Amino acid sequence: MKFSCLGLELADAVLKVVKAAAVRTTNPILECVKLTAEDDRLTLMCTDLELTIIQSIKADVKVEGEAVINAKFFSEFARKISSEQITFTMRNNNSFEILYGSNTATLQCQNAEEFPQPKELENPEKIVIKANDLKDLVTKASVAVAQDDSRPMLKGILLEITDNQLYGVALDGVRMALIKKPIISSTAEFGIIISARSLLEIVKLLPENDTEITVLTQKNHLMIKLNDTILITRLLGYKADFVSYNQIIPTEFSTTITVNRQHLYDTIERASLLSRIERNHIIKLNIKDENMIINSQSELGNIVEHLQIVHTGNDLVIDFNGRFITDSLHVITDEFIKISFGGNMSPCVITPTESDEYLYLILPMRV
Amino acid sequence: MKFSCLGLELADAVLKVVKAAAVRTTNPILECVKLTAEDDRLTLMCTDLELTIIQSIKADVKVEGEAVINAKFFSEFARKISSEQITFTMRNNNSFEILYGSNTATLQCQNAEEFPQPKELENPEKIVIKANDLKDLVTKASVAVAQDDSRPMLKGILLEITDNQLYGVALDGVRMALIKKPIISSTAEFGIIISARSLLEIVKLLPENDTEITVLTQKNHLMIKLNDTILITRLLGYKADFVSYNQIIPTEFSTTITVNRQHLYDTIERASLLSRIERNHIIKLNIKDENMIINSQSELGNIVEHLQIVHTGNDLVIDFNGRFITDSLHVITDEFIKISFGGNMSPCVITPTESDEYLYLILPMRV
Repeated sequence: MKFSCLGLELADAVLKVVKAAAVRTTNPILECVKLTAEDDRLTLMCTDLELTIIQSIKADVKVEGEAVINAKFFSEFARKISSEQITFTMRNNNSFEILYGSNTATLQCQNAEEFPQPKELENPEKIVIKANDLKDLVTKASVAVAQDDSRPMLKGILLEITDNQLYGVALDGVRMALIKKPIISSTAEFGIIISARSLLEIVKLLPENDTEITVLTQKNHLMIKLNDTILITRLLGYKADFVSYNQIIPTEFSTTITVNRQHLYDTIERASLLSRIERNHIIKLNIKDENMIINSQSELGNIVEHLQIVHTGNDLVIDFNGRFITDSLHVITDEFIKISFGGNMSPCVITPTESDEYLYLILPMRV
Repeated sequence: MKFSCLGLELADAVLKVVKAAAVRTTNPILECVKLTAEDDRLTLMCTDLELTIIQSIKADVKVEGEAVINAKFFSEFARKISSEQITFTMRNNNSFEILYGSNTATLQCQNAEEFPQPKELENPEKIVIKANDLKDLVTKASVAVAQDDSRPMLKGILLEITDNQLYGVALDGVRMALIKKPIISSTAEFGIIISARSLLEIVKLLPENDTEITVLTQKNHLMIKLNDTILITRLLGYKADFVSYNQIIPTEFSTTITVNRQHLYDTIERASLLSRIERNHIIKLNIKDENMIINSQSELGNIVEHLQIVHTGNDLVIDFNGRFITDSLHVITDEFIKISFGGNMSPCVITPTESDEYLYLILPMRV
């Protein structure tokens, strides 16, 4: 194996794929990057068996071949090389020589045969969606993904295709996110669960615009091909493995308010400075006429803030974990939001004032 | 006590003084900020008994008085207030009311009597120096300050006035920094040891230019007054308590090289990627003719880099902890530096090529 490539392109490519390398594992080959030199391309691949990222770049290939080397070292090393042209040569006894400028690094390789093969998807279902719609769906849904490992399915986002819409659903037992985005086309209706961590890494590599992205999915895997990048992730499960979320969403409300999102966010952020000292993050909302009073207290003192609201229905006093509300407000960009309540023992629902593009459901605290 | 002030000015002032508040302590009053409203000023003060920072701002004082409240909470709170005008009122039973916009925070105060008084300096010695010279001296010297607590004096920087020069000296047992800067005037020659942590906080608050700074020092304290800011720190000791550093500096060298600083830094950074895996950070320098080979190895492989140098004296092979060299190179800005060696068992000395403004001494490793 012998090839040359550009230092900057190599550094870029390694930085992309290394996100899929395993960090602490009993199988050291998963902490490696596999380099494949073939035709006029160098292909880099990392996988932790859940997420696989494959990136190819131009290369001047003299002798085709494969090499498997430590990914963390290689990504830091590639970033620190300032040389334009880098030449790689496989020597005897698995030693991989890197020439940059007048310098040489010689690295021990792992056995390339042991590196997992990427999955091939035969006859997959196909969804076409705009890149920024998929990015936004994943970002907004991931807020409500469970952080602990007790129910593995809840560390995923349910992606569901119904009526030419893509729904993203996540929930952790005290809150839920339901995000809806239009799709351009789809070959079937289905519901699959994908790890939120993988989806977040995947959407980071998508462009920030309305480029049409083709998502392929089949049995156990989801794949996105994008120019020189291939992203593959294992399915955590199917819709049947997830919570029947539709039954959770309340349909009747006794109190509804419309409020400036940024003002509410700032207010709860200040109030939380006190409540987080007690580590309970409790804030009390007191809705009365066209005014909402937000209150928090701790041994240090108390904070009382007033917000102007548009209000229909009953007056209400209700307690929340302030962080659950600000987590949602943080990923919303609308100027105004609607919050609907069904009494002080029922969840509240945060939605846009005019559409159903997102819905956050948050359980109140019982103090 | 009752006063109003501008939100932005308050936030700025709290952010400055909070750096001197104690973080984890058995005496909770040291985690507080003391507010004093007097004449047309609000004065904020924090102290951990080693470092004291006092900042005053304009205020509309209706009733003079003092209040002592939790510094960490207050600094985060002040940063999150967007109101222009903030009004503070002391109520009965030590409750301190803050009005911002239509909102209210009520905080429990500590007993202001218990807050430590700032030290007054009577008949102090006086040094006048340019702000950027003092900043540069502290930044460059702090590289060699000891990190462990076994010898408290070595957590300080020795500041010594001799022949109208300020010398800053730090050492940790394996390396030493000796930095020299001109002063504008001084009332006496002396040597005092100041905690590096305090000095670094102090120079952060100095302007980035050649403003003349007056440093006052007397018995146990050093003080800098700067517009509306007063910085006071306790002395750790005197020159007699420090290591006799002059005896350590070698005067005869058998090998001297001149090398591009940035190239050497980049080279050692790459080589250290391997040596830090073994956690020993060992890099080997091999000086021969007009070439220096930098070499590092670990179980992953080895790196061999070549640097062009100007070389006088003997050829030399010597091992160093690469981090000790890059720490120094990181705070130097010269294009070229001189490194002098007295054999492979003696320390090397890094200096400018033409002056004696700084000197780093680094012990080699015995492999």
